[in-house]
Amino acid sequence: MGHQKSTNVTWHSGEVSAADRSAYLGQKGVTVWFTGLSGSGKSTISVALESALMSKQKLSYRLDGDNIRLGINKNLGFSAEDRTENIRRIGEVAKLFSDAGIITLASFISPYLADRDNVRQLHADAGIAFVEVFVDCSLAAAEARDPKGLYKKARAGEIKNFTGIDDPYEAPQNTEIHLISDKMTVDEEVDLIVSYLTDNDFLA
Amino acid sequence: MGHQKSTNVTWHSGEVSAADRSAYLGQKGVTVWFTGLSGSGKSTISVALESALMSKQKLSYRLDGDNIRLGINKNLGFSAEDRTENIRRIGEVAKLFSDAGIITLASFISPYLADRDNVRQLHADAGIAFVEVFVDCSLAAAEARDPKGLYKKARAGEIKNFTGIDDPYEAPQNTEIHLISDKMTVDEEVDLIVSYLTDNDFLA
Repeated sequence: MGHQKSTNVTWHSGEVSAADRSAYLGQKGVTVWFTGLSGSGKSTISVALESALMSKQKLSYRLDGDNIRLGINKNLGFSAEDRTENIRRIGEVAKLFSDAGIITLASFISPYLADRDNVRQLHADAGIAFVEVFVDCSLAAAEARDPKGLYKKARAGEIKNFTGIDDPYEAPQNTEIHLISDKMTVDEEVDLIVSYLTDNDFLA
Repeated sequence: MGHQKSTNVTWHSGEVSAADRSAYLGQKGVTVWFTGLSGSGKSTISVALESALMSKQKLSYRLDGDNIRLGINKNLGFSAEDRTENIRRIGEVAKLFSDAGIITLASFISPYLADRDNVRQLHADAGIAFVEVFVDCSLAAAEARDPKGLYKKARAGEIKNFTGIDDPYEAPQNTEIHLISDKMTVDEEVDLIVSYLTDNDFLA
């Protein structure tokens, strides 16, 4: 194993471009954006994908609630305005990571179509690849899993504006990848995404 | 050339850690934070450093006004509050990049000691390395360079709260690296930083 891919990189001085970083890393930067209900499996899939990519000697990085909500977005709440700003900032951070050459795995409920389309657009404006993954799971299945006990709290009225309960989830209409997470296994889901990334030359 | 460094990486499945990414890349993530007056040479040095690192097969990424002010911080102005939030967000983004294993080059005037110390602290809290580089340049020399014509505008009163003119620059007292940019050449400055990074095992 090891990276044979970059043995032909000879470096010229001057500004390092996104193409230079890609050649060095042997991959193309891309934002893989997971959207879906709480409990749909977004984080589980992205952790498994990150591991699968590392086993192929590809560098990825996960952006999720753990490193975003407690960091750059710690001054945002859950009002409609703050939710939009939350997704906007994450989109901008993902764009920078992908520009750096990283396969960027962003896992956020991101329930609103307009917010996701904004993120898609800001990538398009910068010429940076964006792949949306709809982690499609029935509310019943997500609520039955309830890995963090959040649905229970939302049903009890302890959490307000919870997506799927008293706040809408606007399902994507045309995503690059559509996973049916209450029917498929994590391995099947990861294989689908890796195939997509391979077929679209992100891993070469 | 080529990266021989990672040929001994064998991947176990599970969450990919910062240490795993470091082993893969053959470097340690670190935030190199350039602070100094407008025109002091921060961007010039970071561009040259990025190129020098690439020639050593090390992956870095530059955060600067071009990709931050027009992106994640485009909704911030120049009030004291917004300047603090500007630096805070940049610090959080830099922290994520360094966690990803990247040598992160952040070039911002960042005139206030408290703001820079906040960034240093948030890195420390996360166990992520932070190296402050004081790009020390006399106001006279920076103003004589005036690469963007900003000092001229500030002197004419067309720009308010301009660092060094009508807003203070709080010089660092104890930085990891102190460059005298009106006396040293860019090559000398880059060599100093590369030596520091080498001596502190960030490039191995």
